[in-house]
Amino acid sequence: MADDGQKRGEEEEQVVNPWEVTAKDGGKIDYDKLIEKFGCQRLDCSLIDRVERLTGRPAHVFLRRGVFFAHRDFNEILDVYERGEKFYLYTGRGPSSEALHLGHLVPFMFTKYLQDAFKVPLVIQLTDDEKCMWKNLSVEESKRLARENAKDIIACGFDMTRTFIFSDFNYVGGAFYENMVKVAKCVTFNKVVGIFGFTPEDHIGKISFPPVQAVPSFPSSFPHLFPGKDQLRCLIPCAIDQDPYFRMTRDVAPRIGYQKPALIESSFFPALQGETGKMSASDPNSAIYVTDSSKDIKNKVNRYAFSGGQDSIENHRKYGANLEVDIPVKYLSFFLEDDDELEHIKKEYGSGRMLTGEVKKRLIEVLSELVERHRKARAAVTDEMVDAFMAVRPLPNMFS
Amino acid sequence: MADDGQKRGEEEEQVVNPWEVTAKDGGKIDYDKLIEKFGCQRLDCSLIDRVERLTGRPAHVFLRRGVFFAHRDFNEILDVYERGEKFYLYTGRGPSSEALHLGHLVPFMFTKYLQDAFKVPLVIQLTDDEKCMWKNLSVEESKRLARENAKDIIACGFDMTRTFIFSDFNYVGGAFYENMVKVAKCVTFNKVVGIFGFTPEDHIGKISFPPVQAVPSFPSSFPHLFPGKDQLRCLIPCAIDQDPYFRMTRDVAPRIGYQKPALIESSFFPALQGETGKMSASDPNSAIYVTDSSKDIKNKVNRYAFSGGQDSIENHRKYGANLEVDIPVKYLSFFLEDDDELEHIKKEYGSGRMLTGEVKKRLIEVLSELVERHRKARAAVTDEMVDAFMAVRPLPNMFS
Repeated sequence: MADDGQKRGEEEEQVVNPWEVTAKDGGKIDYDKLIEKFGCQRLDCSLIDRVERLTGRPAHVFLRRGVFFAHRDFNEILDVYERGEKFYLYTGRGPSSEALHLGHLVPFMFTKYLQDAFKVPLVIQLTDDEKCMWKNLSVEESKRLARENAKDIIACGFDMTRTFIFSDFNYVGGAFYENMVKVAKCVTFNKVVGIFGFTPEDHIGKISFPPVQAVPSFPSSFPHLFPGKDQLRCLIPCAIDQDPYFRMTRDVAPRIGYQKPALIESSFFPALQGETGKMSASDPNSAIYVTDSSKDIKNKVNRYAFSGGQDSIENHRKYGANLEVDIPVKYLSFFLEDDDELEHIKKEYGSGRMLTGEVKKRLIEVLSELVERHRKARAAVTDEMVDAFMAVRPLPNMFS
Repeated sequence: MADDGQKRGEEEEQVVNPWEVTAKDGGKIDYDKLIEKFGCQRLDCSLIDRVERLTGRPAHVFLRRGVFFAHRDFNEILDVYERGEKFYLYTGRGPSSEALHLGHLVPFMFTKYLQDAFKVPLVIQLTDDEKCMWKNLSVEESKRLARENAKDIIACGFDMTRTFIFSDFNYVGGAFYENMVKVAKCVTFNKVVGIFGFTPEDHIGKISFPPVQAVPSFPSSFPHLFPGKDQLRCLIPCAIDQDPYFRMTRDVAPRIGYQKPALIESSFFPALQGETGKMSASDPNSAIYVTDSSKDIKNKVNRYAFSGGQDSIENHRKYGANLEVDIPVKYLSFFLEDDDELEHIKKEYGSGRMLTGEVKKRLIEVLSELVERHRKARAAVTDEMVDAFMAVRPLPNMFS
């Protein structure tokens, strides 16, 4: 039944699919095993060097520090770019909660960097239909959340002249629906059971959904953006739990005359309580939200952020912190841009010269600044701007 | 697995679903058993009388002669009408072949009568997506066939001011797609296996399709037609093989706040070779096509129409024809409008005074006239008219 790594049972070490991320025995996700299981490639230094060379700018922190750590055919996208041709970016979000947490921002921050560095068009899918089906929200509530989330996404700084944001409830139809049908014809029920772990008790809305997330990978789904460019390559930045959708998409693509999308995939942003999965929007104390006040942030970091420091100052000075499990250091490695400072903290903290409280204090500063910057940017996003990003229109700066 | 009458096996007597109509042991379809199995009601004389009384015109031949023989809540539709309120009609076609045969015309001829008699709006769905998936046609070919079939449908004489024709590839989206998701959330894979006989080897396009045929039953799927009329009742004239779709629809409707559609259901128009199933578009000699010439019709009727006459003139004069199995008489009962003449033929032929050749000659006249009338009407249907019927627009004569 399950031939794609979603199988449970004694031999099963970890579960990673779009709806569940669980490490083995409460431990950490083993990303090497995930790469092997999913059949993607590790993003190595030579690729990162190539990105820097081609774009003429330093690689993003998330690349340098291995947050985006795996890929499929990213090298081919760079080949395309090196030949002076273009590609487009596709990412998305399932709008299930009103407030985003920091983990939600990761793919968008990285996608913005890619858009700026490569100067390429971007489509962002808000899967309000998915959340309506999985979370049993009403259509109206799902659509409302999609628009609220769109404001947070726009606040990440995307270039409106290169970005089309759409919600499925607003956009499914026409060429997009035609592609959904083309994909659906190529995938059996048995196949989606293998890839996604569906059961016969699942409703057919779930079973119908994978083609909806697949088809933005194909430029012909956007006739207002890419007319006559059916073979334009697509690069998808996403967290690796979305890989099953695109394994399916890549399997189907050549059978319906389309290019396989390339992927660049991130690890999960860990919960405050420790690196056993990804942050959960349903447990407010597991995550820092973009709506949290500086006081909230201080309280959450101090109270919940799992520390690798020792249980007494004496032991800490003696043995140093265990950086492998330390959440403040992990969070700083996502969001503290200064490489030298990060190295300094790791060295001092790992050797016991710096205490947990000092590291947490620095993290609180970094996160408060980030969240405050986001809060201000989001407050400036008007309903008119949302309408403008979501308007079905050609993009003026598509390939320039 | 199969709790809705699609189960095969020793006890199984006949198979009737949207993709297969097979009588038991090459015999006739047992419509009484079908009514019992599906759980619909027989359309009795009192309902037909009521139709005549309410509309002030004689009942259609297809009603008088039991072609439309079963229903679900048709009485409630008449209650609505009697109270001075309105309803709307919904019918459709899967555009799988270029030329329609006479069996394909039956629901449209009857729907036109209902539209004229009740003066109500009508939506006609062309399921080009379904045929693309089941018949493995390309999207483009399916869309082309939908337009070709639309011409035949328009040729049946529908009132453009009351009729909206749409193809799924052109129309799915917006409120229609929202309703698809609402329906899909309420139906499990197990359920569609029970209703439609799908298997895990079927592709997910098939499994996704039932909501597409379900949602035209809900007025909110057509915001340009029925704004603010979400509780408007819907009456679906169709052949009884489509009943599974609407059993599912009726099951779901109250759970998502909608009215159940009512149905009025026909028996199958028999093949020339005899009444064991419905006509097949794939065997050209089993059917009279609207594109057949008078010569074709003469040849097909004389050569293939199964006769209930005896094997010699002597025996025929002695025993008379078996009207129960005679296809020329069956066809005349569909298309010869004059009740007196039909009775006369049945009496004379049944008693042996009239010969098969004479009955076939009369049938050839009736069908040739019908097909010629259709041919002329279809030739007058322009591409502009198709565009006009398919335009997403309010209907000027909706409720007048």
